[in-house]
Amino acid sequence: MLANPRLFVFAGGESGRWRVARMAAIAGAPLEAVARIEILGPGEVSTRPAGCRWMLHGVASNERYVVRAEKSELLARQPPLGRPDAGRAALIAIRKSERWWALAQDERREIVEERSQHIRIGMKHLPAVARRLHHCRDLGTAEPFDFLTWFEYPAGHAAAFDELVAELRRSEEWRYVEREVDLRLEREC
Amino acid sequence: MLANPRLFVFAGGESGRWRVARMAAIAGAPLEAVARIEILGPGEVSTRPAGCRWMLHGVASNERYVVRAEKSELLARQPPLGRPDAGRAALIAIRKSERWWALAQDERREIVEERSQHIRIGMKHLPAVARRLHHCRDLGTAEPFDFLTWFEYPAGHAAAFDELVAELRRSEEWRYVEREVDLRLEREC
Repeated sequence: MLANPRLFVFAGGESGRWRVARMAAIAGAPLEAVARIEILGPGEVSTRPAGCRWMLHGVASNERYVVRAEKSELLARQPPLGRPDAGRAALIAIRKSERWWALAQDERREIVEERSQHIRIGMKHLPAVARRLHHCRDLGTAEPFDFLTWFEYPAGHAAAFDELVAELRRSEEWRYVEREVDLRLEREC
Repeated sequence: MLANPRLFVFAGGESGRWRVARMAAIAGAPLEAVARIEILGPGEVSTRPAGCRWMLHGVASNERYVVRAEKSELLARQPPLGRPDAGRAALIAIRKSERWWALAQDERREIVEERSQHIRIGMKHLPAVARRLHHCRDLGTAEPFDFLTWFEYPAGHAAAFDELVAELRRSEEWRYVEREVDLRLEREC
């Protein structure tokens, strides 16, 4: 069967151009420590890199919470992935609780933005931080996380990125996060 | 790999307890005609029934548009699948356009409910019609549809169900539907 053209795989192991600088389990079980991350894009997802210890799958999809004004601002300000000067990256893998998923759409939006300012906090880091969100919860396989977010930024923005993440972790939205693994990476070559 | 516990498969072919009474391509390409539908639930999804001509995969997920008041009303009024007196069913498979998926959340909600009354129209048919919505767009495989909706109702509600579907097809939301296949079924045994 053909793969979804929006499917990406993060393969943790011995190969890949992103070297793992640090890895932390913020909530719940850790992931096995690895030296590098390989990102497989559409068309490569059936490959299993040599020395791979785990593979996380996710699909880039439509946004679930941003309203028109926010979307237009994001489209105008967000940079692409793959910028030559963005040599740092983060992979933040999240699983939310059953209580989160049982909320209605307006309740989740209220928590995400009106009470936690998730979108607004991210916006403060544009255009420094490029981001791609991958959804895992509606894949056909049982996945360990609901979301994989991939960020790329210049080395000079690393301290500010730590503050972005800390601010989100203090938010009401994060009370619904039951598992979180945070990997920081540096590009080689 | 373990299957998602919310994954269901609709297998069209020669077997299954639901006999196809009629099948119509409302928009876009038809599906190959089949005599019966087998529904495979979590734990059975790797089976391929004998004589199967096509398999449609979908994941039951959180709602994307219903607000709290609507969700509470739905929870209070919607019947379960599998009622002995609900011997009729419909499988409606839909694909929406790229233009739809590029809209922001508030724009999609506005079209779905404020302008098309999708939730309100469905509510008029409770508790007669049981329903389970399956999402296909964020599966790891390239799927022919974005949504599979399965409905079960008593034979006496068949004409009213036709009106439900006709009302939705006249709505603004349906201008974004680029492929739709409608199967009507009768339970045997």
